[in-house]
Amino acid sequence: GEARIDHHRALRTGLPEVIYAAGKTPEQVADLFARMTAAGSDVLASRATPETAAAVQALTPQAHYHQTARLISLRQTDLPATWGHVAVLCAGTSDLPVAEEAALTAEFFGTRVTRFFDVGVAGLHRLLAVRDQVLEAHCVIVCAGMEGALPSVVGGLVAVPVIAVPTSVGYGASFAGTAALLGMLNSCSPNVSVVNIDNGFGAAYSATLIARASDPRNGAKAAAR
Amino acid sequence: GEARIDHHRALRTGLPEVIYAAGKTPEQVADLFARMTAAGSDVLASRATPETAAAVQALTPQAHYHQTARLISLRQTDLPATWGHVAVLCAGTSDLPVAEEAALTAEFFGTRVTRFFDVGVAGLHRLLAVRDQVLEAHCVIVCAGMEGALPSVVGGLVAVPVIAVPTSVGYGASFAGTAALLGMLNSCSPNVSVVNIDNGFGAAYSATLIARASDPRNGAKAAAR
Amino acid sequence: GEARIDHHRALRTGLPEVIYAAGKTPEQVADLFARMTAAGSDVLASRATPETAAAVQALTPQAHYHQTARLISLRQTDLPATWGHVAVLCAGTSDLPVAEEAALTAEFFGTRVTRFFDVGVAGLHRLLAVRDQVLEAHCVIVCAGMEGALPSVVGGLVAVPVIAVPTSVGYGASFAGTAALLGMLNSCSPNVSVVNIDNGFGAAYSATLIARASDPRNGAKAAAR
Amino acid sequence: GEARIDHHRALRTGLPEVIYAAGKTPEQVADLFARMTAAGSDVLASRATPETAAAVQALTPQAHYHQTARLISLRQTDLPATWGHVAVLCAGTSDLPVAEEAALTAEFFGTRVTRFFDVGVAGLHRLLAVRDQVLEAHCVIVCAGMEGALPSVVGGLVAVPVIAVPTSVGYGASFAGTAALLGMLNSCSPNVSVVNIDNGFGAAYSATLIARASDPRNGAKAAAR
Amino acid sequence: GEARIDHHRALRTGLPEVIYAAGKTPEQVADLFARMTAAGSDVLASRATPETAAAVQALTPQAHYHQTARLISLRQTDLPATWGHVAVLCAGTSDLPVAEEAALTAEFFGTRVTRFFDVGVAGLHRLLAVRDQVLEAHCVIVCAGMEGALPSVVGGLVAVPVIAVPTSVGYGASFAGTAALLGMLNSCSPNVSVVNIDNGFGAAYSATLIARASDPRNGAKAAAR
Amino acid sequence: GEARIDHHRALRTGLPEVIYAAGKTPEQVADLFARMTAAGSDVLASRATPETAAAVQALTPQAHYHQTARLISLRQTDLPATWGHVAVLCAGTSDLPVAEEAALTAEFFGTRVTRFFDVGVAGLHRLLAVRDQVLEAHCVIVCAGMEGALPSVVGGLVAVPVIAVPTSVGYGASFAGTAALLGMLNSCSPNVSVVNIDNGFGAAYSATLIARASDPRNGAKAAAR
Amino acid sequence: GEARIDHHRALRTGLPEVIYAAGKTPEQVADLFARMTAAGSDVLASRATPETAAAVQALTPQAHYHQTARLISLRQTDLPATWGHVAVLCAGTSDLPVAEEAALTAEFFGTRVTRFFDVGVAGLHRLLAVRDQVLEAHCVIVCAGMEGALPSVVGGLVAVPVIAVPTSVGYGASFAGTAALLGMLNSCSPNVSVVNIDNGFGAAYSATLIARASDPRNGAKAAAR
Amino acid sequence: GEARIDHHRALRTGLPEVIYAAGKTPEQVADLFARMTAAGSDVLASRATPETAAAVQALTPQAHYHQTARLISLRQTDLPATWGHVAVLCAGTSDLPVAEEAALTAEFFGTRVTRFFDVGVAGLHRLLAVRDQVLEAHCVIVCAGMEGALPSVVGGLVAVPVIAVPTSVGYGASFAGTAALLGMLNSCSPNVSVVNIDNGFGAAYSATLIARASDPRNGAKAAAR
Ligand SMILES: Nc1ncnc2c1ncn2[C@@H]1O[C@H](COP(=O)(O)O)[C@@H](O)[C@H]1O
Ligand SMILES: Nc1ncnc2c1ncn2[C@@H]1O[C@H](COP(=O)(O)O)[C@@H](O)[C@H]1O
Ligand SMILES: Nc1ncnc2c1ncn2[C@@H]1O[C@H](COP(=O)(O)O)[C@@H](O)[C@H]1O
Ligand SMILES: Nc1ncnc2c1ncn2[C@@H]1O[C@H](COP(=O)(O)O)[C@@H](O)[C@H]1O
Ligand SMILES: [Mg+2]
Ligand SMILES: [Mg+2]
Ligand SMILES: [Mg+2]
Ligand SMILES: [Mg+2]
Ligand SMILES: [Mg+2]
Ligand SMILES: [Mg+2]
Ligand SMILES: [Mg+2]
Ligand SMILES: [Mg+2]
Repeated sequence: GEARIDHHRALRTGLPEVIYAAGKTPEQVADLFARMTAAGSDVLASRATPETAAAVQALTPQAHYHQTARLISLRQTDLPATWGHVAVLCAGTSDLPVAEEAALTAEFFGTRVTRFFDVGVAGLHRLLAVRDQVLEAHCVIVCAGMEGALPSVVGGLVAVPVIAVPTSVGYGASFAGTAALLGMLNSCSPNVSVVNIDNGFGAAYSATLIARASDPRNGAKAAAR
Repeated sequence: GEARIDHHRALRTGLPEVIYAAGKTPEQVADLFARMTAAGSDVLASRATPETAAAVQALTPQAHYHQTARLISLRQTDLPATWGHVAVLCAGTSDLPVAEEAALTAEFFGTRVTRFFDVGVAGLHRLLAVRDQVLEAHCVIVCAGMEGALPSVVGGLVAVPVIAVPTSVGYGASFAGTAALLGMLNSCSPNVSVVNIDNGFGAAYSATLIARASDPRNGAKAAAR
Repeated sequence: GEARIDHHRALRTGLPEVIYAAGKTPEQVADLFARMTAAGSDVLASRATPETAAAVQALTPQAHYHQTARLISLRQTDLPATWGHVAVLCAGTSDLPVAEEAALTAEFFGTRVTRFFDVGVAGLHRLLAVRDQVLEAHCVIVCAGMEGALPSVVGGLVAVPVIAVPTSVGYGASFAGTAALLGMLNSCSPNVSVVNIDNGFGAAYSATLIARASDPRNGAKAAAR
Repeated sequence: GEARIDHHRALRTGLPEVIYAAGKTPEQVADLFARMTAAGSDVLASRATPETAAAVQALTPQAHYHQTARLISLRQTDLPATWGHVAVLCAGTSDLPVAEEAALTAEFFGTRVTRFFDVGVAGLHRLLAVRDQVLEAHCVIVCAGMEGALPSVVGGLVAVPVIAVPTSVGYGASFAGTAALLGMLNSCSPNVSVVNIDNGFGAAYSATLIARASDPRNGAKAAAR
Repeated sequence: GEARIDHHRALRTGLPEVIYAAGKTPEQVADLFARMTAAGSDVLASRATPETAAAVQALTPQAHYHQTARLISLRQTDLPATWGHVAVLCAGTSDLPVAEEAALTAEFFGTRVTRFFDVGVAGLHRLLAVRDQVLEAHCVIVCAGMEGALPSVVGGLVAVPVIAVPTSVGYGASFAGTAALLGMLNSCSPNVSVVNIDNGFGAAYSATLIARASDPRNGAKAAAR
Repeated sequence: GEARIDHHRALRTGLPEVIYAAGKTPEQVADLFARMTAAGSDVLASRATPETAAAVQALTPQAHYHQTARLISLRQTDLPATWGHVAVLCAGTSDLPVAEEAALTAEFFGTRVTRFFDVGVAGLHRLLAVRDQVLEAHCVIVCAGMEGALPSVVGGLVAVPVIAVPTSVGYGASFAGTAALLGMLNSCSPNVSVVNIDNGFGAAYSATLIARASDPRNGAKAAAR
Repeated sequence: GEARIDHHRALRTGLPEVIYAAGKTPEQVADLFARMTAAGSDVLASRATPETAAAVQALTPQAHYHQTARLISLRQTDLPATWGHVAVLCAGTSDLPVAEEAALTAEFFGTRVTRFFDVGVAGLHRLLAVRDQVLEAHCVIVCAGMEGALPSVVGGLVAVPVIAVPTSVGYGASFAGTAALLGMLNSCSPNVSVVNIDNGFGAAYSATLIARASDPRNGAKAAAR
Repeated sequence: GEARIDHHRALRTGLPEVIYAAGKTPEQVADLFARMTAAGSDVLASRATPETAAAVQALTPQAHYHQTARLISLRQTDLPATWGHVAVLCAGTSDLPVAEEAALTAEFFGTRVTRFFDVGVAGLHRLLAVRDQVLEAHCVIVCAGMEGALPSVVGGLVAVPVIAVPTSVGYGASFAGTAALLGMLNSCSPNVSVVNIDNGFGAAYSATLIARASDPRNGAKAAAR
């Protein structure tokens, strides 16, 4: 194995290292997954194809593959009660792979997640119908392709940070998610920050940190800071 | 004068030729304006700086300059009763020059115009408050910069064509209106078509043709077609 | 099903919701199509591959697949007499998939359509030969790839709105339709508005709204407005 | 005044509306500032030139202009004790205008701010020297131009969200901040999210929401959620 | 003088070296112009501002400045009878500076030039009216901004090479001539080749070589080849 | 067949219409090819895959397929003696498909062609070794990918027009030929004009027109002009 | 064979010509490889697929294929003792193909190479742990994808030239390595120069020249210069 | 002063820190310059306007301003004999500011510099005339704008590293140096590496490190490594 696993990352940054499977051979991923499993920690691999999942499960049969979200996960530690609450919204059903990557990652990291899918701006009543439920979250992740307008609209309705995830859904002048990315970076709602196109994982990572710190039970723990 | 004025354009395309002042010297514009005035028609020049307006008014004192909209206009014919009704919306007050170019051009062409300014998506209640009035128009022009999300939201609320005008309002990754342009081209509302960045003039032109044809009084006239 | 079908869209926007099949699995599309069929309405799905069509027809055998246009359609209501008249032009025979998507969509929505294919600007006599027929339409859709020059030429000949559809036909510096898109956005014919690359569907949607409102029989109906 | 002030924004989104001065005339900004002052709230205007500041102070003499940060502020309410703690880092002294916009905005919103300027990655010891102090913040804002590498390095050292602000500092292939923007969007540190080029204001807005919610005293207040 | 004048260029490439004034100080241009004048040849400088022209004329009073075309020229040799015939077309009057740069350069090189200005495609009758005259040229230069459609239309009408010159006329999505450039590179008329945006000079250079070689009197001269 | 064949193109533009096979089904191309064959003219189809060639040869067995150049040709008329002389150069052996498309097209149109392949600028002696032979042509086509420097160097050595063809050879920042295209458009050799990436066909078309007109035997024929 | 092999390149530029296999057929590469083998020199081919390697080994069985690095090599001369020392670093294990191309190329050219893989900036301790070893090299090659931050950090730690190689590792706004490329071009460490995306070969070439000249044994040899 | 001066940079990286004046106020630069002067080291500031130079000289009268190169320098230490030899080439006289920035920076760092200006590829004999002199350098810097072809040609002639500097000389599709940058990154000469557009400073920095290490006298010193 060429890889230098960053075993101390959880200590340093609060959350463990995750395997990025794209650009690695199935064998490399399976080897990494097995070594991290052997170390006793919870293990997550993102962007995994079915072939990679098969290679991982050959070495680590107890690993679970989430096909839509392209994630492989293995829980080995006892998850304490979840901390914090994240809402994951997406504009259309074509955004599901990214939205599920975000939702499952946040759940893997121990956050409560509520999903609101297919609530795009062309039929605004769908978003307004769930607005009160969305307001209960500590952080909102919004996935949208095409023009990527949903984060701005959501941003104007909530009082918490919005993490916008442009998706590569669309064609032509969507330029594989670039139109949505640019739209979100220029949001007129100032509580919106943005991650890379299709990066549900990164959105969940920041959202987890935010939601966890916002959990009222955090007060005692953080008081020492 | 080097220019070949297209005197038959109104016959051929329904609306008269308009002078595009950008890239012409004040003298060239003033000369064109005077020649078209002498021909007896209504005259409009777009993208005119104050210097150009002064040069035009030196030769044609009765011309009127609309500074915000950068338009110079002169009405010489009797305007019959207006035909058709266009709504002009804009997202923020910085979009005013483009929105006014659109509104004044449509009025110059004999259309009734209602303005709804500063109704951007970050404060959705502002749009919802005027929704019923917007529904009365035969065509809706929507001007927005930054992420350009407003046309998609409006498109989902109305049953008429929406002409979207991206504006160059914004900075950084707005790339001088490109972000808004791409957003609008990828609108998930299918009744949205798009014109060039800051092209309030072109939006008004198409909107006028649509609104005029949609006017119920048009029935008799068009019946011969 | 994750999707929230927007059943009221026809009421709100005049035309029913249409399924966008790209980015959805064949199963998701087949399920949506069946649910909308069960609701009794006319159903249309765009951007459907043969695999998706097969999945749809397995559940809904009466659905029809238009291979060139990549559309699946099902008519369940009685179509009243068509309203309005749209001309669909394209520059070369390689533009046919987009032009047919536009033509069939407009027909699905109840509009009369006349097709003028392979009338690109390199052989201008072909366009001039059909000019008088084109003049009979209430709205003109123009599909062109490569340099996308046709909408400007058509725009200068007609007195109705032109909806330009850039196509991804071309290579090299066409950048998959971007050259045609930019050309159309910069048209010197002011009656041209533009939709996304290869978006025959959207062009037909706006054109239908325009043609329907322009139909002389519309006078009575619209008079109440 | 054309503008529709969004007076309820603080109620809805937790923080008041802020005037975006770019693209508005000095008179428009001065008028808005005066109307919001009259409403009794704290007022902030971003992207204000010295000319705009002079126009504002002519109507509202008690307003304060921060030249480097291009902000005009006026505090009219009693600021309660600050809540939450934000660290603002920047790579070089040329990033100061953006970093100060971020720092002053967060302070305006009632957050404690610690500044760490000129700690770019070409001299890593400068960052390592302040690392322990940075670890005390609830959220870290990192401003950098050129290659924009600093957020990734900081992201690997801290356990809180990092808001990255690309700046337009640089030349040539920096493309006015685009290189830094792209770098930050592709950060290999998963706790990094990004705002628009030079958008210190937006970074401070999200950071304030995060830091405020992370403040241990928040526990009691948020418990009702 | 740092410059190494390429005195043999006329021998090698058929036409003399020309001074590119942009990016040089007025003094550098004036010095080069004077040295080439002293060598007895005809001298041409392109892209010259009025300041540069003044500096040149201070040293070389007999030099002539063509302001619209931004050219400085000096003829010192006896021009033999002109060889070859070039037509220069442009779409709108805003394209004049580029069209004149092309026309005057070709004339400087000893070619007969006929100008057809303001014959853009939005009013096709203007081009068709001069078609027979255009057919008399050995090579056609076509300058156009905005969507740059004119070269394709001209290319379909003539049997000689067309040199297309995109101009930076336009705004927004014209991206300073890029839209026109891309359009011309994707021309469906195969006799079109393209030079840089606003490069009237280069177009004239190639056109001169073509027209000169096409001149029937060339037969004898070229027979030796 | 949907296609409107432009049978008069040879009369109007000097050379016959050519079938562009990309984006057409093999059946469409075969049908067009057969119809043009039936009309008795010489027929050429560009950008043809082996599948398309097979379909054409099924209907028109005498058609010839040039695999490297992706051309299908059929000569039915008597080719008179060739007119004019074109040199085709390419930088590396990877540029061969484009260079052969150019060479074979020019030969199809009746021009004499000399090939100089693999003479890129990294080994300048290879070009200098053939320089004298290149000087014999009436027009030079230069195909190059990567940085596309060869046309500038050739342009400085010859006294005839250079048609530059950027190829998509390269990787990374070549952006599929864009780097070479931009380089050629900015050539400091003024006798260079440019066609689309990989457009050997278009280069041959213009080169044929130039070489044919430059042929000394042309003198008599052209004298009537 | 169309190719003109540049046999004198080693004499002229110090290192032999290398076959660039991309865009060539396996047969073309095998033929070139065999001809260069027959000439007695050491032979290297880059960017070779397994198919190409098989074709080469069919003609030249003693050739060696390095699959990860996509290189085919054959050593026929006696390698003298290695000269100079190059360090090759990469940020993640997905960068391995490029890093290995660099490392093996430098070794092929007779340089000593030390590899430091998976030392990206998100876990800085990994780089700091090997810092002293890196300081021993005469030149450092740094391969990184995504945001490409590693060269700037390394550049600030060493006193020798850094050759940065952006890799196409990443997704979305990495734009196939463009983000990393731009980042590296804008490095705030002034000892960084850059080669094309994924161009491990070119980096090794320059690094070899630098390391070889920096070798202390070079003193005597170079003294004559 | 906000700036943290990196006093140990010379120790760590071999060359001292240099002030980047762009984006700093004249006062900030003057203050930094004075503090570094007081520390006794040699001081260099790049990208300095005349205003900045005046501010620096007000505090540090002995500083020298090189207007063309936009550098301010002050030598306070005894320069030992120069080490290493760098050739600086540029294509045209418009590239002089960048070429002089490179040449003066290398001289400031103690390297011998030979200049070869105006040797662009359109007149190849100019480069061939100086070829033997260029071969004497340990490293070659090549500055070129427009198509940026010169580094590839030079790279094929020399046996040392070539540092290519794209300049922003050009217009239109040069996109402010981007065309030259892309050309250089795709050079077919493998000994070429590239720095940012107009970055003569960075080129000189790397070239100095290379030339210094290549100096034969370096043998003894480096032997300890
Ligand atoms: N602001 C504008 N944006 C785009 N096109 C315009 C504008 N104003 C006028 N035009 C069009 O430009 C044509 C005149 O161009 P020109 O011959 O250059 O004056 C008019 O007939 C209009 O169709
Ligand atoms: N510097 C800024 N960058 C981005 N958004 C801003 C900035 N300053 C204010 N805003 C946002 O823009 C809105 C006001 O826009 P407007 O109605 O045009 O004044 C505010 O409510 C803020 O959310
Ligand atoms: N390889 C090619 N590249 C560019 N244009 C071509 C090419 N081959 C043919 N053409 C042009 O495309 C026209 C035919 O287009 P179409 O009607 O779609 O077959 C021909 O008349 C040629 O002028
Ligand atoms: N992977 C590579 N990337 C860039 N240039 C290369 C590569 N491999 C070989 N080359 C260069 O390309 C030249 C060969 O090009 P060709 O004549 O097309 O085989 C060699 O002399 C090398 O300088
Ligand atoms: Mg939906
Ligand atoms: Mg507002
Ligand atoms: Mg055709
Ligand atoms: Mg500093
Ligand atoms: Mg005109
Ligand atoms: Mg070769
Ligand atoms: Mg790793
Ligand atoms: Mg020169």
